[in-house]
Amino acid sequence: MQLKNDLILRAAKGEITERTPVWLMRQAGRILPEYRKIRAKLSGFKELVETPELAAEVTLQPVDLLDVDAAIIFSDILVVPEAMGLTYQMLEKKGPYFPKTLKTIQDLDQLHIIEGDELTYVYDAIKIVKAELNSRVPLIGFAGAPWTIFSYMVEGGGSKTFSEARKFLIQQPQLAHQVLELITKSTLNYLKRQVAAGADLVQIFDSWAGILSPSQYREFSLPYIEQIVRSLETVPVTVFAKGAYFAMKDMNNLSCQTIGLDWNMDIQKAKRLLADKTLQGNLDPAILYGDKNQIEKATDQMMKQFIGHPHIANLGHGVYPDTHPDQVKIFIEAVKKFNS
Amino acid sequence: MQLKNDLILRAAKGEITERTPVWLMRQAGRILPEYRKIRAKLSGFKELVETPELAAEVTLQPVDLLDVDAAIIFSDILVVPEAMGLTYQMLEKKGPYFPKTLKTIQDLDQLHIIEGDELTYVYDAIKIVKAELNSRVPLIGFAGAPWTIFSYMVEGGGSKTFSEARKFLIQQPQLAHQVLELITKSTLNYLKRQVAAGADLVQIFDSWAGILSPSQYREFSLPYIEQIVRSLETVPVTVFAKGAYFAMKDMNNLSCQTIGLDWNMDIQKAKRLLADKTLQGNLDPAILYGDKNQIEKATDQMMKQFIGHPHIANLGHGVYPDTHPDQVKIFIEAVKKFNS
Repeated sequence: MQLKNDLILRAAKGEITERTPVWLMRQAGRILPEYRKIRAKLSGFKELVETPELAAEVTLQPVDLLDVDAAIIFSDILVVPEAMGLTYQMLEKKGPYFPKTLKTIQDLDQLHIIEGDELTYVYDAIKIVKAELNSRVPLIGFAGAPWTIFSYMVEGGGSKTFSEARKFLIQQPQLAHQVLELITKSTLNYLKRQVAAGADLVQIFDSWAGILSPSQYREFSLPYIEQIVRSLETVPVTVFAKGAYFAMKDMNNLSCQTIGLDWNMDIQKAKRLLADKTLQGNLDPAILYGDKNQIEKATDQMMKQFIGHPHIANLGHGVYPDTHPDQVKIFIEAVKKFNS
Repeated sequence: MQLKNDLILRAAKGEITERTPVWLMRQAGRILPEYRKIRAKLSGFKELVETPELAAEVTLQPVDLLDVDAAIIFSDILVVPEAMGLTYQMLEKKGPYFPKTLKTIQDLDQLHIIEGDELTYVYDAIKIVKAELNSRVPLIGFAGAPWTIFSYMVEGGGSKTFSEARKFLIQQPQLAHQVLELITKSTLNYLKRQVAAGADLVQIFDSWAGILSPSQYREFSLPYIEQIVRSLETVPVTVFAKGAYFAMKDMNNLSCQTIGLDWNMDIQKAKRLLADKTLQGNLDPAILYGDKNQIEKATDQMMKQFIGHPHIANLGHGVYPDTHPDQVKIFIEAVKKFNS
């Protein structure tokens, strides 16, 4: 069925659209009181992720309430390592925690490649969202980049330095590559199922890109991202590698059309180094703590710099949970007004 | 008294030395069993910081045991906010925690500028170290950059996003500048006392530089760093702004001679953009998890790139606590061999 609003799909194919499409990372829930109401009734975050009807409901909320140009499925990048064999808990105020982590070659026995119905609850949620959206806007599917998933599997949770994961790369590089292969195959199978279920566009989040040295990033992250995006031929793909300012030139060679920028990345430089790509981003999420005037001014400044380049407006990182929805609306309105 | 080894001082004044000096951030303690032995007898980290004889002892350990070209006083950047009025606790495995934080203009009443003997224990430790060193190598004093101190005062501890501190900059920019002024004056007074007590060189750590957008960094961090370094006329000053890859051009204009690089920063680019500066760094600290061959190869690769430019060898961040001292020695030896 023809989408009523396909701005983001056209931009994600390299088109300079008549109006710049806009959505927010982490828009699915998190900031909305309507989301919190649902979340409060549940045992935890994972119950929400694993219950298709509820995941679908919070996915649709920002479309209805914020009027963004795309929905993004409510889920978590860590469903992939879990489906591969390492379960995790989401600890309140602390973040993810893996009781078992990856340390030696023996631990590989615990892992398997996602090939079947391990993550049916995600595909089911996508189907419900698609039906409910009724072609209003496109739906974005997503997964973590293999390096980012690998670091959680080794580290067992968040970290300031990810020194365990980086130690693994130094001490057991062959094994790291083996694991990255398993994650890559799993992620590709998972994303293909998301597309089959109805995802119109896919985004890959390399959240811990910035912790690697440039040469490590070239060895342990980019080739696996490339494997994935090269094989996703039917939908546009966006790669968002937070902190990988040093890899812009390399990223221009990825077989995907869109590259996300974080708020530290210089737009002019990105336009030069990523000349062939659609760019997504990159307002500082902290700007949404400002008043109407500040948000409008900062949005306009950002939008001006992207003129003449294919662009999808977004923040430079996920929206912060204590952001007021009204401030998000001001940002979205400012993007839409800029073009009209 | 004439220093027996003044390599680091000459490099820090812009000289290309006959052998590149080497030291490690966080070398004072942390990785050495000899340090842990002392630490284990105490109630906590702060007791060590506040007891001059013990702080001096762990400051000297890496000079004796690792044969580095400089000592750095064992202390903590958070003694400054504490002396200004906000006490902190160092929680085991969790890091610093400030029970009271800075939120509104009323909280300014709790703060005062460091002008006197608030931090005598640091100056005393410096005096003991200087006497014990007996001019073998120079002693480095240090402080946090005002922005980094400010973020701890507002955030109350570590954070993945520092969104509270960044919210403060957006919502109360005037007040932020007022607080940054207080911190700047305090830091300057503190560093002058360190120099008077015997510090031969001073380093300013802007640990959270990378969390700001380039324009915010120019407004809320760099001018305060400049105020400090401009007023420290008698000793060489190093500024290490982690993650501030976007500010290299600006940093070339700072009134200090040395700029530290983190391990993500491109050395060739740094040599171009920081053409007038001595560069310090920047081996990935995770490399020290490798074997002898890996460490030597990576060190050589790094050293080669700095040839022809004034250079102080170091890691690109503090040494990780679980690094084996032998691996640190291999790094230090590799730097020293490279030049001979």
